[in-house]
Amino acid sequence: MTASPTSASTTAAGPAGHGPSASPSHPRAGDPVFDLHLGGKMSIQSSVALAGAEELSLAYTPGVALVCEAIAADPSLTQHYTWVPNTVAVVTDGTAVLGLGDIGPAAAMPVMEGKAVLFKQFGGVDAVPICLDTTDTEEIIETVARLAPSFGGVNLEDISAPRCFEIEDRLKEMLDIPVFHDDQHGTAVVALAALTNSLTLTGRDPGSTRVVISGAGAAGVAVAKILLEAGITDLAVTDRKGVIHSSRGDLTAVKRSLAELTADVTGRTGSLADVLDGADVYIGVSGGTVPEEHVATMAPDAIVFGLANPTPEVHPEVARRHARVVATGRSDFPNQINNVLAFPGIFRGAFDAHATAITEGMKLAAARALADLVGEALTEEYVIPSPFDPRVGPAVSAAVAAAARQDGVARR
Amino acid sequence: MTASPTSASTTAAGPAGHGPSASPSHPRAGDPVFDLHLGGKMSIQSSVALAGAEELSLAYTPGVALVCEAIAADPSLTQHYTWVPNTVAVVTDGTAVLGLGDIGPAAAMPVMEGKAVLFKQFGGVDAVPICLDTTDTEEIIETVARLAPSFGGVNLEDISAPRCFEIEDRLKEMLDIPVFHDDQHGTAVVALAALTNSLTLTGRDPGSTRVVISGAGAAGVAVAKILLEAGITDLAVTDRKGVIHSSRGDLTAVKRSLAELTADVTGRTGSLADVLDGADVYIGVSGGTVPEEHVATMAPDAIVFGLANPTPEVHPEVARRHARVVATGRSDFPNQINNVLAFPGIFRGAFDAHATAITEGMKLAAARALADLVGEALTEEYVIPSPFDPRVGPAVSAAVAAAARQDGVARR
Repeated sequence: MTASPTSASTTAAGPAGHGPSASPSHPRAGDPVFDLHLGGKMSIQSSVALAGAEELSLAYTPGVALVCEAIAADPSLTQHYTWVPNTVAVVTDGTAVLGLGDIGPAAAMPVMEGKAVLFKQFGGVDAVPICLDTTDTEEIIETVARLAPSFGGVNLEDISAPRCFEIEDRLKEMLDIPVFHDDQHGTAVVALAALTNSLTLTGRDPGSTRVVISGAGAAGVAVAKILLEAGITDLAVTDRKGVIHSSRGDLTAVKRSLAELTADVTGRTGSLADVLDGADVYIGVSGGTVPEEHVATMAPDAIVFGLANPTPEVHPEVARRHARVVATGRSDFPNQINNVLAFPGIFRGAFDAHATAITEGMKLAAARALADLVGEALTEEYVIPSPFDPRVGPAVSAAVAAAARQDGVARR
Repeated sequence: MTASPTSASTTAAGPAGHGPSASPSHPRAGDPVFDLHLGGKMSIQSSVALAGAEELSLAYTPGVALVCEAIAADPSLTQHYTWVPNTVAVVTDGTAVLGLGDIGPAAAMPVMEGKAVLFKQFGGVDAVPICLDTTDTEEIIETVARLAPSFGGVNLEDISAPRCFEIEDRLKEMLDIPVFHDDQHGTAVVALAALTNSLTLTGRDPGSTRVVISGAGAAGVAVAKILLEAGITDLAVTDRKGVIHSSRGDLTAVKRSLAELTADVTGRTGSLADVLDGADVYIGVSGGTVPEEHVATMAPDAIVFGLANPTPEVHPEVARRHARVVATGRSDFPNQINNVLAFPGIFRGAFDAHATAITEGMKLAAARALADLVGEALTEEYVIPSPFDPRVGPAVSAAVAAAARQDGVARR
């Protein structure tokens, strides 16, 4: 099947199954998911039409040489005359894809393309999926650093813990563009927004609220950190062996520093069941299951976020018997904690400010903006906006850009 | 400036200067080249519209997990359900950009974006510019190899000689996707097509035609090799020190092997002027200048291709006084040797055949298809089609796909 230049550029704008090399029949034809994925979910679009030699001489040689020379003399002109400042690399090694685990870079691509579609639709950000054929921490870091001149930002995605922490930290140090591990911070921002409204609804103050997080992977660590920044002081994080505290001999470096900020402060130890007893808030990012009898021991007006997908740690119908506010990661129940509420607006805002980094202040501003959108409409079934609420992207990006300027990382 | 999800997705389809972060005023406003480049020349387009939760559940979680699992079980499904098989990485290190030389990766981006625009317009190929922050041969090779799962092919671009030869050779060995250094092979394919028609026009046979090439960089080496494959036997290549032959003590490995295939065979030595005397064909890819009195010594009905841009080695008006066929790299004279005639159709054809490599047979087929398009209309002023001839892309891609099948590198 050969595409002519004309047909190729027009079919690229068509619906799913449009790709020049896609054929109408395919191995899983008839399955709506596979039909939608035929030919992939994204394409490149030219912003310039080359109708003849004159346009070609402006967009390509010899005209383009003027732009190259100008950028060589003044690198800041990249921000004006290339697609770089609006473009994020969505980088994975395929080791922690959704709930599927280590499925490798090729099999991770559909998720990365999906992420790119969300970046575009909800943030107007051009995202390029980069699936790396290495799982070595040093190799991932050096590879992303070498790619950096091509992109205005880096969104790390579905890289397993604890490597994801070091990879993000080191790249943030090395690069002067935003680096953001969405599995950590996207989830953390949205969870904080929902929790902020849940505390308001139940009349709680962060400083006197007892919080339990189960799961100390990428999301658990980031949720814990942002809650501490937001004023939560009584916080216990559990893994499969119970509460993470310094007297345990089996802690990784990441868990040890987490322990010092959480259970060590309050002296809490024991099992998940032990710390749930009397807790005000439970946030599950573990993929495990919490029995109903343990949920029943929580404080009155409890808040339960079971964020594992597709099976929450506590089924929302079960949770509702014992908790006043219930949130999940699912779209078929109220209060969906979906990080699409955060990452498109965060990068949009960072890019609008030409930010050199994504600071803690920018993440907190994103959470506050999300929480504020609920406003007077706040109820037990509405603590967080819908991903399809058209106010979300603009509100988050404006707050993030303002925070970037406040934090001194904005170039514009 | 904040883009709402709606406005961002519509503005992305607009004309130049559309980018969400582009501002109407800019440092070089009023210059048509810079006005056209405002906001960059390309963007990402989603093929799926996420109108609500249902579409989201097909294109992203939970539906997308089915596609990931299917690819993990059968990697060949990547060819159907991702954008990978239609996507080429346009990779540079910024060391040999146009005639500008080593301007670095950031300043190279406008050329790479231009290349991506040409790939899309003339081949329906989705191209992603990758400008690398390293010029080390080993680092470039390992970086591109790690990126490979993300792309259906690799187009190397504007990497200086002799590193470009080793980088291409090694990546071709390592990867099972097409790897193509356009500065070499794009130029070689189009030059061969134009030469084929020029020989027909002047009644020459490749086996008895004396050819001189000045310039032994990426283009010179590749042009020499493809002419040998096409049946030219009397070929001398010159660099700044004259004819490249094995008795010279200053040859790089690449030049030594080139000498063995060219001047060593015929025993020609001396200066460019020496070998031009009586030569049938001169092909300049050097950027130097050839004095008129040397052109005047060529054989009757000489063929002169001065391909340096923007200043040909022999000005076409000068060349026409002594040669019957004259070609340049410029659009403002007849017979433009422009590699946009080759690379979009070559990758289109390779992708349509799901080829694992670009073989010598595929390059020769591309040259033949280009030459054949001229057909009966062949004159001194028309030995090669125009880049805007709509037959070019389909003809080249069909010929390349057929050659891929013939050469046993097609998966479809």
